[in-house]
Amino acid sequence: MLSWAQSLYPIPRSLTGDGVRETLGFLSEVTKGLRIHSVRSGSAVFDWAIPQEWKIRDAYIEHLDSGQRFAEFSKLNLHVVGYSEPIDLVMPLEQLSPRIYTQPDQPNWVPYVTSYYKRSWGFCMSEKEKASLPSGDYRVFIDSELFDGEMLYADALIRGKSPKELFFSSYICHPSMANNELSGPVLLAALMNFIRNEIPEPRFSYRFVLVPETIGSLTYLSKHLDDLKAGVVCGFNLTCVGDNRSYTHVESRLGGTLADQALEAAFLGLSNASKYSFLNRDSDERQYCAPGIDLPVAAFNRSKPGKYPEYHTSADNFDVVTAEGLQGSFDVMSTIIRAFEGGLYPKAAVLGEPQLGKRGLYPTTSQKGSYDAIQARVNVLAYADGNHSVFEISNRTQLELATVLNELELLGKAGLIASHDETW
Amino acid sequence: MLSWAQSLYPIPRSLTGDGVRETLGFLSEVTKGLRIHSVRSGSAVFDWAIPQEWKIRDAYIEHLDSGQRFAEFSKLNLHVVGYSEPIDLVMPLEQLSPRIYTQPDQPNWVPYVTSYYKRSWGFCMSEKEKASLPSGDYRVFIDSELFDGEMLYADALIRGKSPKELFFSSYICHPSMANNELSGPVLLAALMNFIRNEIPEPRFSYRFVLVPETIGSLTYLSKHLDDLKAGVVCGFNLTCVGDNRSYTHVESRLGGTLADQALEAAFLGLSNASKYSFLNRDSDERQYCAPGIDLPVAAFNRSKPGKYPEYHTSADNFDVVTAEGLQGSFDVMSTIIRAFEGGLYPKAAVLGEPQLGKRGLYPTTSQKGSYDAIQARVNVLAYADGNHSVFEISNRTQLELATVLNELELLGKAGLIASHDETW
Amino acid sequence: MLSWAQSLYPIPRSLTGDGVRETLGFLSEVTKGLRIHSVRSGSAVFDWAIPQEWKIRDAYIEHLDSGQRFAEFSKLNLHVVGYSEPIDLVMPLEQLSPRIYTQPDQPNWVPYVTSYYKRSWGFCMSEKEKASLPSGDYRVFIDSELFDGEMLYADALIRGKSPKELFFSSYICHPSMANNELSGPVLLAALMNFIRNEIPEPRFSYRFVLVPETIGSLTYLSKHLDDLKAGVVCGFNLTCVGDNRSYTHVESRLGGTLADQALEAAFLGLSNASKYSFLNRDSDERQYCAPGIDLPVAAFNRSKPGKYPEYHTSADNFDVVTAEGLQGSFDVMSTIIRAFEGGLYPKAAVLGEPQLGKRGLYPTTSQKGSYDAIQARVNVLAYADGNHSVFEISNRTQLELATVLNELELLGKAGLIASHDETW
Repeated sequence: MLSWAQSLYPIPRSLTGDGVRETLGFLSEVTKGLRIHSVRSGSAVFDWAIPQEWKIRDAYIEHLDSGQRFAEFSKLNLHVVGYSEPIDLVMPLEQLSPRIYTQPDQPNWVPYVTSYYKRSWGFCMSEKEKASLPSGDYRVFIDSELFDGEMLYADALIRGKSPKELFFSSYICHPSMANNELSGPVLLAALMNFIRNEIPEPRFSYRFVLVPETIGSLTYLSKHLDDLKAGVVCGFNLTCVGDNRSYTHVESRLGGTLADQALEAAFLGLSNASKYSFLNRDSDERQYCAPGIDLPVAAFNRSKPGKYPEYHTSADNFDVVTAEGLQGSFDVMSTIIRAFEGGLYPKAAVLGEPQLGKRGLYPTTSQKGSYDAIQARVNVLAYADGNHSVFEISNRTQLELATVLNELELLGKAGLIASHDETW
Repeated sequence: MLSWAQSLYPIPRSLTGDGVRETLGFLSEVTKGLRIHSVRSGSAVFDWAIPQEWKIRDAYIEHLDSGQRFAEFSKLNLHVVGYSEPIDLVMPLEQLSPRIYTQPDQPNWVPYVTSYYKRSWGFCMSEKEKASLPSGDYRVFIDSELFDGEMLYADALIRGKSPKELFFSSYICHPSMANNELSGPVLLAALMNFIRNEIPEPRFSYRFVLVPETIGSLTYLSKHLDDLKAGVVCGFNLTCVGDNRSYTHVESRLGGTLADQALEAAFLGLSNASKYSFLNRDSDERQYCAPGIDLPVAAFNRSKPGKYPEYHTSADNFDVVTAEGLQGSFDVMSTIIRAFEGGLYPKAAVLGEPQLGKRGLYPTTSQKGSYDAIQARVNVLAYADGNHSVFEISNRTQLELATVLNELELLGKAGLIASHDETW
Repeated sequence: MLSWAQSLYPIPRSLTGDGVRETLGFLSEVTKGLRIHSVRSGSAVFDWAIPQEWKIRDAYIEHLDSGQRFAEFSKLNLHVVGYSEPIDLVMPLEQLSPRIYTQPDQPNWVPYVTSYYKRSWGFCMSEKEKASLPSGDYRVFIDSELFDGEMLYADALIRGKSPKELFFSSYICHPSMANNELSGPVLLAALMNFIRNEIPEPRFSYRFVLVPETIGSLTYLSKHLDDLKAGVVCGFNLTCVGDNRSYTHVESRLGGTLADQALEAAFLGLSNASKYSFLNRDSDERQYCAPGIDLPVAAFNRSKPGKYPEYHTSADNFDVVTAEGLQGSFDVMSTIIRAFEGGLYPKAAVLGEPQLGKRGLYPTTSQKGSYDAIQARVNVLAYADGNHSVFEISNRTQLELATVLNELELLGKAGLIASHDETW
């Protein structure tokens, strides 16, 4: 995952354009079955319209006297405000200055700024560099194009025995920033590969979606709403999943979905895990959980977007995103997938407590304290009633999800878990 | 409101009699549409019977040796125990003393005492004055009458498009005390005028009820129970609403009604706001929420009856009740009315988040932090799903009710809130 | 109760055998209507099989050199591991030692150890005595027998007007230990006598069950499951109910049953009362609440099994179990029975608050503070709506269950509580 993210890092992505094309091309190569879709500029999507395509070739400001160039797009693609109009003018620094965005509270970092839905142009620089710009006239140069073209997005569907789907979404519209956003698409790609490689005949179906943020998820919803509402039983929007600082769950709009149960269970035993309500949502969960859409989707992050200092700046790089961080996210998501595939609503096969002792699953000599070691086992059995999901069993018993899965596997092998409800 | 209360203050009210007649007469003049009803003494009302009418002309005790008079009704109508029988006897202080009620822990104040349902007589004095009574014989004089007459109460109904009703009740049976009770009837009268003047074509119907406490609300319920159960969707019993010390919500019997949601929302952002369970009820909410009646009625107070020192004493005057206090109560109630009239269950008109930017309701340049300012707006939209009442939206988002109403108005003008459920 | 327990104390009970026979015989004499049932060794019970019958006549170890005997069964029946096979061998201390169980953290006490379901043998000694055993060879002697015989259990059914049952279970398989277990059977016997003597025509039916732990409750369930599921509305497993240290409620598997409501209410006002979730279950509630069985059964203990130091050792004697302890348990259970018999879902007979004053149940003179004394009465009335059980009334009002029952009795005598739902 880390090397994929590093390969994708330099590409200048935006809502539309060559950066997205190249990114989806790369991801199509490292996975199997990704379908790329195109929608024409101007197409209506719910309350929105697909914006024009943006092509950006170069941009900088050049101090006329010295010939010195600043805010060079070719050096850092954050330097140009996303969706900037073409411009080629000379103006004094005083006139240019309001068009140069900085993050004054983080004076060494270049902020990430866009103006997708209103024609504008601008540059981004660190507060420090802006302050040191020599006075005088500047050539202001943005070699960009806005034209009726297309917006791309991609999806993949892996069909399982059940038409019920697990849903994973991430986005591919941010330029060179590692945690927000590249950690998301590479985790999603790794999960695709995990299912293809490790779960040859999945019980559930799996849908993976890569879209430009907001307009892309709205587009996807507008085209697939009925299918999604009928099929999706649990979904996650994956954002900022590459750092190793914390684990974050942003609840679905009304809470209590399988996705919410799942993250709660998967976070048991993790330090620095936090749950936020939907009031603190950030990304495409805003669309997936909007009133009337209400898919059972929660957001999964490591550091919460907007809550870590490097967010939306040039400092969101591979000091933030690490192999350990990505692996931790993969472990959470793959454990949840294992939970679904292992049987979501386990049910004890016998009435009353089973005789575990004769199966080697219980001490045969009874003295006080002798049952402590198998407390997890009997507690999992106590709630394996066919009504509690694996996640609810985990949350009720406060046993880590992996522990619950291991106990269920042991009990299943001993014939103590009945065949699962096949309607799911 | 304050001047109305001051005009009503001197009138010697009780459950029945001329004081109530005069009070309802005054309120009929400052409002429009108040209907006064009469019910005959002895009429059965659920488990109760309407008491006899009480006429009180004068009362005092006179020290025979000195001719000094004390506990003079003509100076303060609290001096006579409510519903005292007529008496004209001479007795020594020792014999009289048990009939003189004081509030020993508040030695300067005259307590308010009644004996409605058992024939008795007595006087009320401050502990200090009682202690200073000269010894010797006293003429004990109460010029009162108890006879089969009538009990009065009043109501008003303002019909809106929907037969569903908001219900407001207060009482008119206490003599010269300002917070308990005059603040209640004058707030109720002001709300009547507010609806007549400010809401010419109300969406909801409004019912206002002024009764003697307990027996009056029981009477009203016994005559209108089916209508009230069919119509009332939210109601408030208004008591002690004139001081500026705190805000109090006493929940309905089972909690969770629209009235409870409404007060909870309207109290957001107020300091010194408290919620009590029905176990701490005081006044006619006891009847409106009794088992089998269970109207969706909560009690609204500023200081809670019984919890402020001047309660049921001669000190409950216009040092306690102020214009600011009354206005604060009016603001709470009128904001709740505005919430009902503005559409109780707002629903977003589009699927997915609307594009607020093109309507000037959202920043068009995106940089980190740029959405903080419109967090309230998007959070209101997120729960405008047609299932959450305005109050639930407020309580869930922890946004002040007035803020929610303002955002909904803005969004409504932008066409982003669908027409409301017209069945309500 | 205490003297019964003392009589039963010396009997060497186990899952099967003469000790159980003698114990059930004794309990049959002090109560009326106990039926003793037999089930043959090897019979299938859900996932289990009835174990062989165990007869134990004598056991000890004898130091060959000195002729000194230790771990003599005749002196303390805990000295032999329950269900030990017969053995008569000579072996050196080193070889014998692993077969001698001690409780190292409680070096003066002999632990209670069994091996019911795997053939084995062993002795139990205090850590101190084991440490002082002289070295050399020992005769290891257990004069026991394991053979196809029977397992006994008992029940009693007292039929009331309603087929709905209250259910009480305890167990009779532990040798000389007072709190765990003799407190349970003697409380159960006292409750049987209480109902027979004090409630001649009970409203509810009552079922009492005495079984060997685990295998006995499974057996009882396997034979009566449909009846129990149809009839039992509230049940308690009685264990460790004889000490006077604390009160413990272990919730049913899913919580919220009448049994849970009842214990919660009955514990109001008791110091040292604790509630545990089903995750902390100990005894036959494991079977009564197993998935798919799910009887409304909670566990009632004083000290929680396993949580008091003397548990499962020779120190669990009549220093732990006292007359006061047993009486406290009896009071809790008999108050709950009174609550059921007095009418489980009381309903006010009038609409609105009744006029308590005319019935002498309310002060007739009203001054502030005059209602404090009857707050319990009006609060009980406020929730006597036919939907709240007596226990829910108690829990909601936080009034002790006995207080609620007394108020309901007073109100009932005044005709203010309607006749109860006769379907229960």
